[in-house]
Amino acid sequence: MKNHQFAIEPVKFSQMIHELKVIHFYNDQMSKLSPALLFKHLLFKAFVNDHSQALKNFRLHGLMATPDQAADNYLDSTQNLSTSAFYNVALQLWHFEVHLDFELDAPLKAMKKMRLPMVKVANPKAMTNKDVLHAWYLMLNTHTKLGQTYLDDLASDGYYKQFNDLPKPLFIDGKAQPVFNTNHLIHEVVYVESPLDTDKDGERDLLKTDIIRPSETNHGVKVPTLFTASPYNMGTNDADGDRMTHNVNKPLTRKQPNNYTYQDVESHADPTKNIPAPRAVKGHAKQPEQAFHHEWTYTMNDYFLARGFAVVYSAGVGTLGSQGLKTTGDKAETVSAESVVQWLAGNRTAFTNPSDHIAIDAWWSNHNVAMTGRSYLGTLATAVASTGVKGLKTCIIEAAISSWYDYYRENGLVCAAGGFQGEDADVLAEEVFSRKKSAGDYHRIKPLWKKQLAKITHDQHRDTGAYNKFWDARNYLKDLKNTKADLLFVHGLNDINVKPINVEHSWKALKDVPVTKKLILHQGQHIYINNFQSIDFTDMVNLWISNKLYGVDNSANQLIPPVTVQDNTKPETWNTYKDWCNSQHHITYHLNDQSLDPESCSQAPLSFKDYVDKKSFAKYCHYLPVWYHDLMSSKKSPLTGNKLIFKTAPFKHDLKVDGNVKVNLRVKSSQDIGLISAMLVDYGTAKRLTISPQVIGFQSIYQGYHWRKDDLREFKYQKHPTPFKKIVVSHINLQNRHNAYKVDDLKPNQYVDVSFELQPTFFHFLPKHQLGLIIFATDYARTLRGNQHISYTIDPKYSSLVVPVYKK
Amino acid sequence: MKNHQFAIEPVKFSQMIHELKVIHFYNDQMSKLSPALLFKHLLFKAFVNDHSQALKNFRLHGLMATPDQAADNYLDSTQNLSTSAFYNVALQLWHFEVHLDFELDAPLKAMKKMRLPMVKVANPKAMTNKDVLHAWYLMLNTHTKLGQTYLDDLASDGYYKQFNDLPKPLFIDGKAQPVFNTNHLIHEVVYVESPLDTDKDGERDLLKTDIIRPSETNHGVKVPTLFTASPYNMGTNDADGDRMTHNVNKPLTRKQPNNYTYQDVESHADPTKNIPAPRAVKGHAKQPEQAFHHEWTYTMNDYFLARGFAVVYSAGVGTLGSQGLKTTGDKAETVSAESVVQWLAGNRTAFTNPSDHIAIDAWWSNHNVAMTGRSYLGTLATAVASTGVKGLKTCIIEAAISSWYDYYRENGLVCAAGGFQGEDADVLAEEVFSRKKSAGDYHRIKPLWKKQLAKITHDQHRDTGAYNKFWDARNYLKDLKNTKADLLFVHGLNDINVKPINVEHSWKALKDVPVTKKLILHQGQHIYINNFQSIDFTDMVNLWISNKLYGVDNSANQLIPPVTVQDNTKPETWNTYKDWCNSQHHITYHLNDQSLDPESCSQAPLSFKDYVDKKSFAKYCHYLPVWYHDLMSSKKSPLTGNKLIFKTAPFKHDLKVDGNVKVNLRVKSSQDIGLISAMLVDYGTAKRLTISPQVIGFQSIYQGYHWRKDDLREFKYQKHPTPFKKIVVSHINLQNRHNAYKVDDLKPNQYVDVSFELQPTFFHFLPKHQLGLIIFATDYARTLRGNQHISYTIDPKYSSLVVPVYKK
Repeated sequence: MKNHQFAIEPVKFSQMIHELKVIHFYNDQMSKLSPALLFKHLLFKAFVNDHSQALKNFRLHGLMATPDQAADNYLDSTQNLSTSAFYNVALQLWHFEVHLDFELDAPLKAMKKMRLPMVKVANPKAMTNKDVLHAWYLMLNTHTKLGQTYLDDLASDGYYKQFNDLPKPLFIDGKAQPVFNTNHLIHEVVYVESPLDTDKDGERDLLKTDIIRPSETNHGVKVPTLFTASPYNMGTNDADGDRMTHNVNKPLTRKQPNNYTYQDVESHADPTKNIPAPRAVKGHAKQPEQAFHHEWTYTMNDYFLARGFAVVYSAGVGTLGSQGLKTTGDKAETVSAESVVQWLAGNRTAFTNPSDHIAIDAWWSNHNVAMTGRSYLGTLATAVASTGVKGLKTCIIEAAISSWYDYYRENGLVCAAGGFQGEDADVLAEEVFSRKKSAGDYHRIKPLWKKQLAKITHDQHRDTGAYNKFWDARNYLKDLKNTKADLLFVHGLNDINVKPINVEHSWKALKDVPVTKKLILHQGQHIYINNFQSIDFTDMVNLWISNKLYGVDNSANQLIPPVTVQDNTKPETWNTYKDWCNSQHHITYHLNDQSLDPESCSQAPLSFKDYVDKKSFAKYCHYLPVWYHDLMSSKKSPLTGNKLIFKTAPFKHDLKVDGNVKVNLRVKSSQDIGLISAMLVDYGTAKRLTISPQVIGFQSIYQGYHWRKDDLREFKYQKHPTPFKKIVVSHINLQNRHNAYKVDDLKPNQYVDVSFELQPTFFHFLPKHQLGLIIFATDYARTLRGNQHISYTIDPKYSSLVVPVYKK
Repeated sequence: MKNHQFAIEPVKFSQMIHELKVIHFYNDQMSKLSPALLFKHLLFKAFVNDHSQALKNFRLHGLMATPDQAADNYLDSTQNLSTSAFYNVALQLWHFEVHLDFELDAPLKAMKKMRLPMVKVANPKAMTNKDVLHAWYLMLNTHTKLGQTYLDDLASDGYYKQFNDLPKPLFIDGKAQPVFNTNHLIHEVVYVESPLDTDKDGERDLLKTDIIRPSETNHGVKVPTLFTASPYNMGTNDADGDRMTHNVNKPLTRKQPNNYTYQDVESHADPTKNIPAPRAVKGHAKQPEQAFHHEWTYTMNDYFLARGFAVVYSAGVGTLGSQGLKTTGDKAETVSAESVVQWLAGNRTAFTNPSDHIAIDAWWSNHNVAMTGRSYLGTLATAVASTGVKGLKTCIIEAAISSWYDYYRENGLVCAAGGFQGEDADVLAEEVFSRKKSAGDYHRIKPLWKKQLAKITHDQHRDTGAYNKFWDARNYLKDLKNTKADLLFVHGLNDINVKPINVEHSWKALKDVPVTKKLILHQGQHIYINNFQSIDFTDMVNLWISNKLYGVDNSANQLIPPVTVQDNTKPETWNTYKDWCNSQHHITYHLNDQSLDPESCSQAPLSFKDYVDKKSFAKYCHYLPVWYHDLMSSKKSPLTGNKLIFKTAPFKHDLKVDGNVKVNLRVKSSQDIGLISAMLVDYGTAKRLTISPQVIGFQSIYQGYHWRKDDLREFKYQKHPTPFKKIVVSHINLQNRHNAYKVDDLKPNQYVDVSFELQPTFFHFLPKHQLGLIIFATDYARTLRGNQHISYTIDPKYSSLVVPVYKK
């Protein structure tokens, strides 16, 4: 294993001593002990579950301090405690195994290799008491083999459970500790009154809001909130979504040219205008009237429930228990999530039930809120951040959409999220309209909902793929300048669902906005990363959240790097950078017959067709991996004439592509319609990382004392080498050469110039590998699949590829 | 979904009323209500989390009673409560959805289709109060769409949590209810003193035993125990196991013929003989000195923790925290698990720690024990059952080994468990010898352990594949006649790890033993089945365990069928039978060139070879699915000359194979060695069930009130049809034609007669399908892979296949 811990705060020694005293590891009497006996005392305190002297001795006797001596024998006999002995014991307590992970005669060597932090001491053969305390403090805050700090490990053993006098909240090394009792969490429901009336019933939409808070809040502790706006968490109508999924085996059709400017497609819709007055408050309550048990769980939120945070889930307008209609990401959904933040910050009314008008405050809240969540959930966090709402201090935004056009469309084309061909805004609306789960509620709202759904289907303009007012109303990038919250973004470089363009655009939109922002790019697809072994992501979030919501002065802004990128060539490797997608260095390649060359280009035009025989078409539609293989492979296949593959010469040195590769093409279509797809590929036989992180410790992450568990995961090398790997792919409608709303004319067999950027990446090419560009038309995984008789011709003299590269 | 509930106890109406009163659903005042208002009252009580009238009304208004009327409107206005209205509401509360799962104008039709039980009433248009109460009681005990009873669903909502006066334990409809507080479970450790000294240190081996018990036991409740003897639960040495794995790409070698009889290989080993005296007890304690937190979880055990049962885990001799040496299933491991049962039953000493000799009783135990667990865990349950130990009332034995020879060997051959080529008893011993995890302990025990391991490697006779004293010492079938416990077996018909022969032999060995035994055969591999939607396995275990451990008179022996078999041709279908592998009906097929015929046979000898070219050999070794495909397929491949495929004519009707298909062959080898493999195959293109059950409800099973969760699973049809499916495979060494210990001579090119039974099955052939038999030699997934130049010839005139078939 290789450990990357960014969230260890380097605190002063006096602070260490103070904290060790607060958590009862150290007291002034212990200063009289020899270094070895001091260490033994600390160890005995760490053996939480061994209550008798006999068992503590037994445990110590099971640890080796040197290649030949058990820890008890060593510590009871030595005059001088060596760092080797200290770290031999530490490594064993961190769950590393002798012979497997380290050797007893060289613990420090193994620690260096595994990137485990250690203290510097004047005399490694004889640690001082100060050395021991410093090393112990660092040892507590170091990650074990199981991907958590040793202190978290002890906490899950019940370490904190022993003491009645711990401050709550408690921060050690700048991070909130699991000292709250998760056995007595309070689960309650309120109904937030939003400034919306999306279902036009003459009353403001009430939003069911589920709260989980520590019972300690009943006794005076005020806590901040992690709020996850999840449209999914009251259930989804999957079968209805499947039924509504659009047929994508349809031809690309010609669009009428126009001269639209942004003004023609700009949305000014504001669902908070012309709404009914707020309900008259008829009374106030301190206790809600509703509890809940069946819950959707997000492990990172669970982790914080033990550490002095409330967690709130609200599914928003149009979901089970709430009022209103689903809108798939428009302003009404933003306002609905924003309303919950406002209630948590003390600036909005909520009621105990939908009918009695009894108001209830978030009296337990310290008015500081973070939004969390991935995908649609992170999308709503982005949306709410863009409002600048008071109380929202930060968002952890994972794999989020920043503009829905970039989710369902691309450059004037319908372009599906990977794995969801035929889905669109209307399908998603139907899937998450969980009011349907209540047959009674649905019986009454059905006519209105059908109308709403039909309007979404109409307005999304699936027939044109154009950016229009519908999509402009779902573009948060316009408002990100208003952000007041510090933002931590996480995105998978291989996310084929929410494409990386979404985080790229957020990142760029925030460039000059005076908030702190951080970015982590991993090698996964559409996943969470809070259970990895090689990076302390959860600790980073803890440090960050403790800073933002509790105001703990822990250098979070400095310790968390601006940009952290997981390397794609080897497991467990995370590098840090100052920025992303902002390289000033580019390599321009010209297109040759089959090759990319920095100097020369081919003269002769290069052509490819789009049609495949019906049998191959059916096979590719049903077995996408076969299509991907035949596309990228140079071996003969039904796709041989349907693509142009260009490759660089094998690289002599490592090369890191940082940002958006740009494709410039002079191209003609045999018809008055056309689409071009461009895929960037890494060619070179190599062991590559697994697509998904592998479980390396089943349920081995403990989130607190008898609290929830999680699997420990990590990307590993795949079992067998592979010859190539898709990096990114992008698509453009040849009638949208300027932008996604202005429709350009296209004449058969007449060249046009088109330039477009591919999805952003950060890709590490190894020496001997080749960068490949594939130009083709239909993307079976994403675009419409008309299987039309169209051929395309490229003029290489006026075509090129511009590759942004990272340089230190 | 199709519901199969075996564990609904048909109780008398007076008993229903009594139970409904105990759990506060009913009281005498309610008898004055009209049927509709009685139903409304019951529903309001079920809306546990809605504490106000407003919210209860809101909830009721969300349910439809008729196609046009919400439940509140209907119940408040009707004179007559119809069964349709009752069950419309019930279906919604059971999480079925209108239009998706049922229609409001025909709820009973849907219920019939889904096999949901319903009450018979005199007038379906006007239920009486008695009808309502009866239907309500049944409704509580009916499975919801989420695979649990509605009462379990309510309990997880907090239903029982409201009351302080519930009896503990509480049994409703014969099943233990989750009324115990899982927030306050006690986790403690004792050290059981076994009558063993496997590590020869002059002291009896102490066995670390982890106990989880309800805190209610501190206040007088005595509870029974579910005990899982899991050698894995203190950790495993996986890397060491991998390193020790044997090379299987070795030639089959000739064995010296002998005339061994069973007496020559019978083991009389008894590790309890000549052992040190028990430790002198120096004192007694009521409270243990050790707690634990990091635990291995078995969801079915967790389920019972909420219902008045303690759960105990003990890893046995040679594991971390315990003493002794691992032996891979011999009598010492049996005794070590038996010792824990004896302690739980009040018949053995345990200590609070390994050194102070302070004894501690299981004073909280009612002395009744069930053993649970799968694989090695279930194996140890089988082993302990065979001792007839006092206190062991039942075992739930899932996918267990009954004789270790049947795990690592077959008919004189080394024969691996599927997926574990090269593993053997020594490899497993090293993997589970978790004393290695304590570097200190291992440092001291290492020389002895290496010796023990070398002895296992020697004694297992990997070079001969013979049944010998080593394996006889690991054969529990010899002693199953001593069983005093009632046994519930569960095994996967597709278990390629622990082959079905293991459960077959147990089943047969118990035939005349006067205990109650039941068998469930599912379509999975090596899996648990306690989270399926279509069968109430967990309820069955509850009914069974409540009967065996608490003595509840609930007809468990009558309600649970003798043999329950999941059908392989369609999802969610479970049939019941009187017995298994005991059919009196057989079809005998003769071998023809490529066909199986009941009448005639070929005259000409049929030959095949074993060798494949080196490239194909490497491919088959690395990609077993390719080998399986090429073996079963009739298409040309490198295996074309390496097998004989015989198929019946397509069946005209359904046919169920029940038991062991027998192969009779007259065969010769070109050398003085030889092995024959025989595979039974279902030929016929069809949609077949998925290999593993699919998650159909992520974390949707709630095991109690704010207690653990589990995924709901079910086998579904695979996405695409497949042309064939392996049913079973077996192998025999041609030098072991009589049994696994007597070595027969074999001469090159000289015919011998060999008869052997294939692994048992229960397989449903659909019409138009063909039963296929493949005769070949090397099984790349299981046998040694010598890739030797041997050819085999069959004389069909003296060969046949005898197929046992099920007839009603």
